[in-house]
Amino acid sequence: MLLFAGEPHHDGSALYVSDLAPSLGSRVTVRLRAPRAAGVTAVHVRTVEDGEPRYTEAAVDELRTSSHVTGYGPDDVWWHAEITAVNPVTRYRFLLLTARGQVWLTAGGLAGHDVTDDTDFRLVAHDAPPAWMADAIVYQIFPDRFGRSGASRPLPDWALPRDWDRDPVIPSGPGTSQQFYGGDLDGVVRHLDHVQALGVDTVYLTPIFPARSNHRYNAAAFDRIDPLLGGEEALRRLADALHARGMRLLGDITTNHCGDTHPWFTAAVSDVNAPEREMFFFDPDTGDYEAWFGVKTLPKLNWRSDLVRSRVPAVLKRWLGPLDGWRVDVANMTGRRGADDLTHEVAALLRRELGPEVALVAEHSHDATGDLDRGGWHGTMNYGGFTRPVWTWLRGPGLDLPQFLGVPGGVPARDGTAALATVRTFAARMSWRSLVHSWQLLDSHDTPRIRTVTGSRALHLVALGLQATLPGTPMVFAGSEFGLTGVNGEHARTPMPWDRPADQDLATLAAYRELFGLRRAEPALRHGGLRWLHADADHLVFARECEAETLLVSARRAPGAPLPLPGPATPVHNASDTNVIPGDGPALRIWRLAR
Amino acid sequence: MLLFAGEPHHDGSALYVSDLAPSLGSRVTVRLRAPRAAGVTAVHVRTVEDGEPRYTEAAVDELRTSSHVTGYGPDDVWWHAEITAVNPVTRYRFLLLTARGQVWLTAGGLAGHDVTDDTDFRLVAHDAPPAWMADAIVYQIFPDRFGRSGASRPLPDWALPRDWDRDPVIPSGPGTSQQFYGGDLDGVVRHLDHVQALGVDTVYLTPIFPARSNHRYNAAAFDRIDPLLGGEEALRRLADALHARGMRLLGDITTNHCGDTHPWFTAAVSDVNAPEREMFFFDPDTGDYEAWFGVKTLPKLNWRSDLVRSRVPAVLKRWLGPLDGWRVDVANMTGRRGADDLTHEVAALLRRELGPEVALVAEHSHDATGDLDRGGWHGTMNYGGFTRPVWTWLRGPGLDLPQFLGVPGGVPARDGTAALATVRTFAARMSWRSLVHSWQLLDSHDTPRIRTVTGSRALHLVALGLQATLPGTPMVFAGSEFGLTGVNGEHARTPMPWDRPADQDLATLAAYRELFGLRRAEPALRHGGLRWLHADADHLVFARECEAETLLVSARRAPGAPLPLPGPATPVHNASDTNVIPGDGPALRIWRLAR
Repeated sequence: MLLFAGEPHHDGSALYVSDLAPSLGSRVTVRLRAPRAAGVTAVHVRTVEDGEPRYTEAAVDELRTSSHVTGYGPDDVWWHAEITAVNPVTRYRFLLLTARGQVWLTAGGLAGHDVTDDTDFRLVAHDAPPAWMADAIVYQIFPDRFGRSGASRPLPDWALPRDWDRDPVIPSGPGTSQQFYGGDLDGVVRHLDHVQALGVDTVYLTPIFPARSNHRYNAAAFDRIDPLLGGEEALRRLADALHARGMRLLGDITTNHCGDTHPWFTAAVSDVNAPEREMFFFDPDTGDYEAWFGVKTLPKLNWRSDLVRSRVPAVLKRWLGPLDGWRVDVANMTGRRGADDLTHEVAALLRRELGPEVALVAEHSHDATGDLDRGGWHGTMNYGGFTRPVWTWLRGPGLDLPQFLGVPGGVPARDGTAALATVRTFAARMSWRSLVHSWQLLDSHDTPRIRTVTGSRALHLVALGLQATLPGTPMVFAGSEFGLTGVNGEHARTPMPWDRPADQDLATLAAYRELFGLRRAEPALRHGGLRWLHADADHLVFARECEAETLLVSARRAPGAPLPLPGPATPVHNASDTNVIPGDGPALRIWRLAR
Repeated sequence: MLLFAGEPHHDGSALYVSDLAPSLGSRVTVRLRAPRAAGVTAVHVRTVEDGEPRYTEAAVDELRTSSHVTGYGPDDVWWHAEITAVNPVTRYRFLLLTARGQVWLTAGGLAGHDVTDDTDFRLVAHDAPPAWMADAIVYQIFPDRFGRSGASRPLPDWALPRDWDRDPVIPSGPGTSQQFYGGDLDGVVRHLDHVQALGVDTVYLTPIFPARSNHRYNAAAFDRIDPLLGGEEALRRLADALHARGMRLLGDITTNHCGDTHPWFTAAVSDVNAPEREMFFFDPDTGDYEAWFGVKTLPKLNWRSDLVRSRVPAVLKRWLGPLDGWRVDVANMTGRRGADDLTHEVAALLRRELGPEVALVAEHSHDATGDLDRGGWHGTMNYGGFTRPVWTWLRGPGLDLPQFLGVPGGVPARDGTAALATVRTFAARMSWRSLVHSWQLLDSHDTPRIRTVTGSRALHLVALGLQATLPGTPMVFAGSEFGLTGVNGEHARTPMPWDRPADQDLATLAAYRELFGLRRAEPALRHGGLRWLHADADHLVFARECEAETLLVSARRAPGAPLPLPGPATPVHNASDTNVIPGDGPALRIWRLAR
């Protein structure tokens, strides 16, 4: 029995919303699909306009109902209503009158009690993100560890030289930030065939500014590219190579702080009368300054300062051309301090300054939902709503990690229903647009590797399957396609195993290519709606569907009872021509449902 | 079996939080009570500071655990940790490590999956509300219908004269806003003994400004009191009489609009060059203006206008002295229009202008949670989180109302678990402070009467019992203590039955006096924490408790199986000396639990 298949459904995809990029005042048709068995007798759409709820009665969409545009045809009734994008974010929900009484449908699901507005669907009239973002698959490169051009450069005084293939990464303690493997930007260019063959179309580089560390988050300048990486010329060569392939390049910027060797800060710290003094938070009595988490190499920027408000956006604009957008480090703290909460203002300022064609994705380690849909960030790194639930569901039995991005108590073991509850809780509190433009990542340079978390190729590939098929932009940390391991962020920054065949799990690599290839090929995986069909401890099933097709995805972490497919289906991935979802696992399978 | 009794608990009351009015930087001890059976082995408190989560490990509070400060002593373990009020609202939650894994405790309850920050507990460092508000019981008076002084005044040209005791209220259609019964402010003074005997200490008057309607929401002036009500002198007499009794007086102001006969608007509409033109929204082409819901007698105020920003706060300040604060009409729309959302700014501006000793309670008909805890409104009229769930649970079987405050489909019939889910959903998304300072109302001048909704005295008194014993400020619409009826807001504005003994249900009146008297007498009912102990279709049970006492409240809408009391108890209201909660109902009963 498929649990959720009998539920009325709406989401923010094109199947249900006539205009995904409305302007203020746009009239938009929203649709609801309700199985006849749900007994819906009337539907009202509630919008909240200028703070006040209004109700619009929906009508049956006879054409769509009778022509079986999608799904299971005669069993479904389609309703539609026209609403107005009155505010930059116009919230809406459905009130269903049914035999069992009044039921609300919001992005949080069906509710037989009243729920607050925070899970309402959202019609977003802010400028739409660049069109390419919704199709993107992103590949994260930590420049010191990805590839080497072979150029010979003098070693900086802070660096601890390491051999690419022989010296293991120091996971913690002294030397962590100084260990230096010598990757550079021309080294990235050498491996673009590999990157593109994965299905990736967007490269995201962690910082490339000069800094006295291998991670370069403590930038000593924002107007130069680190000569150790090849400088600005190498950046242009990389960007040109990518753009020639129709690919894109994103940078990484710290808007919350800079490095303590950055001229803004050295000017500020050395002269109380320097104009730059206002750019930071100095204690007037002690002269001490605020820094990220108290780490004194990362002085916090003061977004009340006009200099910060002009100079930081100028930095982001400075590198457009080679770069197509930015990932914003520690966006969650940017502009926040004590009584001040300027973070939405800062995000909107950056977006305005950059214009509509530049991608802006924010880092939030725990909960971005309050910071999205504000006319600033296009999306977030969705650790809270994707990475963590996937980890808790697919973690290996022997996993022993002390914390998850700072959450004490290790990575808890949770069943599929709990993981799904987390996914839905986070997704319900952002617009469909923000969900689609957020990065779905299994790991990053800040976390253990997914292979270490899952402990097996089989579970790793289930995780990959979720990443490749759920709404949201897949972001792969370079090396995970080879099944590399790592117990924490530092440890995970393994130099790529180009010349270490034993470290290349080619079956994993093939799965990445196949699944991301599928994502590129199937419009439903990029632009389709999402209906959850089933969840139990070990099994999650969902449909992705658009006007053209319906794909059914089954993710099993362990063997279980077979489940019937909801109708005739043809195999798409790792599946056979049956009328059941087989009981063996771990396995990720995809079918195309007949219409 | 009491369903929730085995759950770890925290809420924002003084039992669990050491400082209910912290300032920025204050260190505050937060406490968690966990039954030993819950198997909690470690507790971390997560705060979100400047946007970033931090964890503080809690320790067992040995003294509190061993001395059985409250509750059921040896079965409970108390944990405590010290956290800092870093931001105006510092969110916090508990991470419990237990035998069943990691569990979060937020104001939304226990969760075995991850939840977003919106239900986190909130440490609020905004200026605290006036101290008296937390003890208040509010009585709403619609001046035209409460009492008459007998003063003889000429009838205004718009008015349709009606006889106080003989002419029924016109519920809708022509004459609704013109029917005039002639109540006045000196008429209120005459009945203050009645008001005070209810246990009420705060009178809230709907508008008293001159206007061409009986409801006076279309004010023709904000600097005068309607002479039909006795003018400013009568207001001062009423205020003096109340203050002499230690009682308080609140006014009603429209910050979203004024009347179309108000001089601000007449100046603006008659001269495109008038300074007041900027105070409203005129279409530059047509000269048409925006109005509340398109009702042209209520032109919408433009909060981008400096004149609005100075004149409206000046109005609110003008009447302080006689008034101790304001209820703000249509607060949900104030400052909201299209791309502009200034409502939090407006609320904070008003609060700043009025100072810390003036009450400011906002009207929101559906969901105020996003507008509270912003340094503006102290609370809301809690229609969404109290009135509607109570109505859905206690509605009479034959009730036939077309809508609830605009929600189509009538008042749905819901069981106790659904009603509780609504109550908890709304309460979880505001601070304890905002919950306590919000008005819990069973009805108002804008709704049907609770007696009509419930259809019986017995269910009415269960509703009253919830109003008198749950956290939040009870607000009574004058007349409901007599069991008056009304099918909508207009119809509910019945002239008080001072001289119609047949319209006075004295048993209901006695219950109001007893239950509000209890609220005044028992600190746990005003300042205690709230633990839900049981919910089923027909029965809700909860504890209110403070350092001094624990009261157990049982609300039954229908007969059912008796439930055991959790320990020795003495009867407080409508109860007997048993060890069970009896099965008969409808009934509201209160016991004091032995410690």
